Amino acid sequence: MQNIKLSIEYDGTNFAGWQRQPRQRTVQQELQAAIKKITGEAVVLTGAGRTDAGVHSRGQVANFFTNSRLAAPKIFRGLNAVLPDDIRVTDAKSVSADFDARRWAKSRTYRYHIVRSPSALFRHLAWFVPYQLNFRTMNTAARYLLGAQDFSTFCVMKSKKQNNCCNISVARWRSYSNNPYFEVTADRFLHSMVRSIVGTLIEVGRGKISTGEFRRILQSRDRHNAGPTAPAHGLTLWKVAY
Amino acid sequence: MQNIKLSIEYDGTNFAGWQRQPRQRTVQQELQAAIKKITGEAVVLTGAGRTDAGVHSRGQVANFFTNSRLAAPKIFRGLNAVLPDDIRVTDAKSVSADFDARRWAKSRTYRYHIVRSPSALFRHLAWFVPYQLNFRTMNTAARYLLGAQDFSTFCVMKSKKQNNCCNISVARWRSYSNNPYFEVTADRFLHSMVRSIVGTLIEVGRGKISTGEFRRILQSRDRHNAGPTAPAHGLTLWKVAY
Repeated sequence: MQNIKLSIEYDGTNFAGWQRQPRQRTVQQELQAAIKKITGEAVVLTGAGRTDAGVHSRGQVANFFTNSRLAAPKIFRGLNAVLPDDIRVTDAKSVSADFDARRWAKSRTYRYHIVRSPSALFRHLAWFVPYQLNFRTMNTAARYLLGAQDFSTFCVMKSKKQNNCCNISVARWRSYSNNPYFEVTADRFLHSMVRSIVGTLIEVGRGKISTGEFRRILQSRDRHNAGPTAPAHGLTLWKVAY
Repeated sequence: MQNIKLSIEYDGTNFAGWQRQPRQRTVQQELQAAIKKITGEAVVLTGAGRTDAGVHSRGQVANFFTNSRLAAPKIFRGLNAVLPDDIRVTDAKSVSADFDARRWAKSRTYRYHIVRSPSALFRHLAWFVPYQLNFRTMNTAARYLLGAQDFSTFCVMKSKKQNNCCNISVARWRSYSNNPYFEVTADRFLHSMVRSIVGTLIEVGRGKISTGEFRRILQSRDRHNAGPTAPAHGLTLWKVAY
């Protein structure tokens, strides 16, 4: 029995998210179908992060167990040969039997990309924000996100009993080639949390919410105080650290 | 009569290139159809560069004359409202009557993007090159491209009589986020010239052609000595300077 760890990049545009669902095209289901073609086995993939419909991945990690004796490099090449081109396996390794892509993950990093002028090339990868934005105040507000806190404000809650505490270690706006992105790293994320934070930080950047108000909104633990949720297509699961 | 200068971004994936052709979907034709919807006039757009099928643009420039009195910002918004989403107008300005997007262009800059591992997100925007590459020797070879020279080696010639002299002012490999790209600026480019140069530089990077051989190939002015032509989807018209 081998435990295979995969690193996976995907373009979320045409997927109903990571997790297998009946009658929907999902990344997990496409990968499991590809694994079946290569190994002959019906496996269940464990993914590090359950990305929503339309969300992309540069560094999703998943693992599965197989009786196949195929070496990891052969699995790597075999999967890329049979997968649709909006999913690519970027690495495959045979790892110890106790490795679990979800439970062993120490942190996840997401990037949320925006563009300031209408873009054809990045229309599926970045959110077009036509407003003037003050990135200095957005970064001042973002610093309030750091540390272990309750993030109920930025969570679409399913149950009042769930644990909404996350420990954010990185939260800042950066840019390359004049294209800004928000990078955020935490031990765990709640449902729609990054998109909700980004939507609210954009309101700060527009001057509609002050940095002090942002802090009070965060501390209110009330979803109704958050700004609009940013669209899924700007978000990419960037990295999972172990 | 107004002379309108447009800056245009497009995803070349689903286009048979810039130039209008019968029974093909081209960028020029889509833009001209959009201008007709906004102004009611059938115009002819003059573009700074005729990109091939599959080639993208971040900074294409074009101009057209119109009797419409619509202000440039209204034309800008109107065009983006009716254009397909793989073309975006990023700027529109009313300019002097003598401005000509093609003749007035002082230089064009192209970027050719490659990826080193299989990519789902950039599958339409970058060429996957699976080989080990020595970027130092590739940049040594690239320096031989600088200056005014005959580039017949890197041109799909249509006629032996044509002028194949171009003046290259920038030719270097750079990278962002570990994604390498070749940037090249010249007063003019010959047909398939950038893709032919990139394909040959990749052979240098793989160690199949030495930098001295690259120089001799350039000086031979013989197309048959060039390496394979890199695929269109890695190429983007980045900027036109006036």
